[in-house]
Amino acid sequence: RNALHIALMPGDGIGTEVTEVCVGVLEPLARRHGLGLSFETLRAGAFAYRDTGTAMDEATFARAEKADAILLGAMGWPGIRYPDGTEIAPQLDLRFRLGLYAGLRPIRALPGVPLALADPRAAQIDLVILRESTEGLFAARGRGEIIDDREARDTMVITRATTERLSEFAFNLARRRAARRGRPGVVTLVDKANVFTGFAFMRRVFDEVAQRHPDLVASHHYIDAMALDLIRRPWDFDVLPTENMFGDILSDLGAGLVGGMGFAPSADIGDNHAVFQPSHGTAPDIAGKGLANPTAMLLSAALMLDWLGERGGGQAWSDAAAELEGAVDAAFAGGLRTPDIGGKAGTVETGRAVIDKIGAS
Amino acid sequence: RNALHIALMPGDGIGTEVTEVCVGVLEPLARRHGLGLSFETLRAGAFAYRDTGTAMDEATFARAEKADAILLGAMGWPGIRYPDGTEIAPQLDLRFRLGLYAGLRPIRALPGVPLALADPRAAQIDLVILRESTEGLFAARGRGEIIDDREARDTMVITRATTERLSEFAFNLARRRAARRGRPGVVTLVDKANVFTGFAFMRRVFDEVAQRHPDLVASHHYIDAMALDLIRRPWDFDVLPTENMFGDILSDLGAGLVGGMGFAPSADIGDNHAVFQPSHGTAPDIAGKGLANPTAMLLSAALMLDWLGERGGGQAWSDAAAELEGAVDAAFAGGLRTPDIGGKAGTVETGRAVIDKIGAS
Ligand SMILES: CC(C)[C@H](C(=O)O)[C@@H](O)C(=O)O
Ligand SMILES: CC(C)[C@H](C(=O)O)[C@@H](O)C(=O)O
Repeated sequence: RNALHIALMPGDGIGTEVTEVCVGVLEPLARRHGLGLSFETLRAGAFAYRDTGTAMDEATFARAEKADAILLGAMGWPGIRYPDGTEIAPQLDLRFRLGLYAGLRPIRALPGVPLALADPRAAQIDLVILRESTEGLFAARGRGEIIDDREARDTMVITRATTERLSEFAFNLARRRAARRGRPGVVTLVDKANVFTGFAFMRRVFDEVAQRHPDLVASHHYIDAMALDLIRRPWDFDVLPTENMFGDILSDLGAGLVGGMGFAPSADIGDNHAVFQPSHGTAPDIAGKGLANPTAMLLSAALMLDWLGERGGGQAWSDAAAELEGAVDAAFAGGLRTPDIGGKAGTVETGRAVIDKIGAS
Repeated sequence: RNALHIALMPGDGIGTEVTEVCVGVLEPLARRHGLGLSFETLRAGAFAYRDTGTAMDEATFARAEKADAILLGAMGWPGIRYPDGTEIAPQLDLRFRLGLYAGLRPIRALPGVPLALADPRAAQIDLVILRESTEGLFAARGRGEIIDDREARDTMVITRATTERLSEFAFNLARRRAARRGRPGVVTLVDKANVFTGFAFMRRVFDEVAQRHPDLVASHHYIDAMALDLIRRPWDFDVLPTENMFGDILSDLGAGLVGGMGFAPSADIGDNHAVFQPSHGTAPDIAGKGLANPTAMLLSAALMLDWLGERGGGQAWSDAAAELEGAVDAAFAGGLRTPDIGGKAGTVETGRAVIDKIGAS
């Protein structure tokens, strides 16, 4: 059994706090399951930019690229920006440079965590937003133009190659979920094909890929209708592939349904690399106070273990992933309450509560 | 006192049903307030396209353009599409051709109408999404390109001129609302200035305009954070100007909070013209059954009367607008329940219930 090597990029603000607690949970979990895991901490983000003039230097990128997986905290800071005013966001560079087209954003109601919706069916929410993460409107990042201080243009790009890969990923994910959940898998492309050439194209390519997966249900939804239906009946959805900008919006909306960003993990997956990180930002208002909810980070780490298992690590990794997720659920089901949901359990205490449940289930 | 002339464009599906009921409410209301109102019905939409090959012919457009205001039902139909697969949506043509840059989408909790959120503060929801409606990503409508069946491109355009007008409109609207509601007006631009040139530009222009309105609070919010906060604390927001595509998404999200599309009115306002219409579509599943909730249409008509009052119609028009809105509120507060919220009151019955409350308050 070889050790797998994880590049830790804690980043800025609460990113560093949740990363530390997460490693503290992963270490005993790895021992218990006999997983070989080694960590290396890499510096990148807004403060790195302030101190060195580079948000993520090439040596750092090269080390991250060599790792078996990247576990990232959060990056960015108000007041530290690139000269053009845009955010210091090396996490975006990683997505683009490593080709991490599949942005997995699971939205799941955790037992005990207060839900935003009044309808009791909200407790059944269990869907995945699959945000394409290398093109779409974000293809314009750093390439938009301003003409004569009169007009600005940003071009959204949707390619056949990426849409095919994203769609394949979506169907395969739905198939795995269907097996786990014991119900038919449904893949719903979220687009605006009624108005835009790019989205009509995306839909056409998606439909072609859907033909190759007759065991799964393929459907479509317009983005505006989806924003409405994620409020009216989110429990009806399963896997939702969509364009980058739409996915950014829907994943925050989804997080709002199940307790907020503190409960929203993410994985950005490509054919050869993957970055795992909580969906939240660096939370300057609470940074340094030990109050950050590390749940999204722990659930992101579970996604990482699962992915490493799928990629050849084997069953022990998948088991560890399931156990970590189960321990998080059990801790909240048992009454754990973080400050973002009106409780008192800080970052370290939450980590301990989860460790306590590991092996207890 | 001159009669004001309203072009009715009932459109397709339930559009025709809610338009008819709305006229039935407007007529007694106009008599009561001594308003001179005349109506003319114009045909446009998906069935017009199917029957004549044109969704809205030039003679129809010319008549609509000459009217004092346009009251539109809903347009579009599944299976009736332009050859390129996009939707038959003359309402978009009206926005572009008449320069209706200010897409007003009020989101307000109506007494008695069930709210999606569990938090009781949801009863205080009273905000306006101000969707820019002539450019943004929609500038690409009908202009997107596909290269070699390999890649599609749609370009988002944000101009200084339109952003200035939209921002001015937003501050003026917030000032009127502040006076009415007796609390400070807050204008929150919703953008993605941390990533895109166009949005950084939009924010800069907005900030310039904000300088001219020191009596109001100007702020910014990223679109993803706004999607989250419209779930976590929608009661905290007031006027939300934003780009066209973002506004399309947020207005459906907002409608979901307050009972769904049946309760979401809209106005698309330019310097010389305006279209008023419910935010919902043609609802093929219930069309022809008399089940459509006409509330969004009635509230859109109230926006129309208010706008006509502001434009020089005078106080009687504004009073009629307030009375119509009040009658809708009173009807629901009094127990009226439409099918979309689990009740039985059909389109005609709902119209009657509202008429009953006119003059009763
Ligand atoms: C920090 C920001 C640029 C980033 C994005 O929009 O992708 C964030 O919102 C996210 O969702 O990862
Ligand atoms: C019908 C559709 C093209 C339209 C839009 O996206 O603008 C609708 O969703 C709306 O919000 O008016």
